[in-house]
Amino acid sequence: MELDSYITGFVDGEGSFLVSFSKRERMNTGIEARPAFTVSQNMRSDKILSVLKDYFDCGSIRFNSSDQTFKYEVRSLNELTSRIIPHFIRYPLMSSKSEDFKKFSEICQLMERKKHLTRNGIREIIGLAYEMNNLGARRYAKDRLLRAVDEMKV
Amino acid sequence: MELDSYITGFVDGEGSFLVSFSKRERMNTGIEARPAFTVSQNMRSDKILSVLKDYFDCGSIRFNSSDQTFKYEVRSLNELTSRIIPHFIRYPLMSSKSEDFKKFSEICQLMERKKHLTRNGIREIIGLAYEMNNLGARRYAKDRLLRAVDEMKV
Repeated sequence: MELDSYITGFVDGEGSFLVSFSKRERMNTGIEARPAFTVSQNMRSDKILSVLKDYFDCGSIRFNSSDQTFKYEVRSLNELTSRIIPHFIRYPLMSSKSEDFKKFSEICQLMERKKHLTRNGIREIIGLAYEMNNLGARRYAKDRLLRAVDEMKV
Repeated sequence: MELDSYITGFVDGEGSFLVSFSKRERMNTGIEARPAFTVSQNMRSDKILSVLKDYFDCGSIRFNSSDQTFKYEVRSLNELTSRIIPHFIRYPLMSSKSEDFKKFSEICQLMERKKHLTRNGIREIIGLAYEMNNLGARRYAKDRLLRAVDEMKV
């Protein structure tokens, strides 16, 4: 058994790569982009989340009482680019989730280069994020976000 | 990337080991035990099911129009004992699903030895199956099955 490939297999089924957006009127850019890698499990199978947390050596596990699930979550851009993304480049996802991962990875790279602080950069990030397949988790319609970009002060 | 361990990881998240029961009044034993290994995916991620089917070199994929999912399914006792079970002995599941797998594997071994055709054997199989964690899929309450066992002609 090779743990690296097992982890990729498990995440290919149960994991999620998501970039969400919040309006932040106090920020010059008006919009905050928040990438997150998450894996949720019900209470019966929460132990496997500790295996993931130990393996990636970052992130946190929290309990969501509304749907009685545990969620392993990595939100730090630094941890995403130094620990999570390199794993899935080395041990690639095989399902259609690999398409989401590619876009997620591109967005994190843009953010590392501070592109999310510019009008064109955040437009590109929004474009990529709304091509991803977990649209159900979106708080804002794409148009509404792009209108907020037009109002950016930078 | 090692495909064997990837497969175990994916199944640990998405797979299911289930033993269901049907009343068969024409059979001497009165009850038929039906073990199945299944993995379901929505239409977006159905390609990975072909990877599983090719990997295990058995089973079939079918579309369930009621919930719009594809299901990879292995139901042949011979294929379960010769292809599916040996894989998960060699590349063990790490989540709590491994407990279900152990009971599933025991049941298949009992059936290979034709124990499901005897009163005590089918009692043992029902006992193991109802300790498994996918009780939601059960058509009959355990008591009702055991009453049917009492009426067995063998």
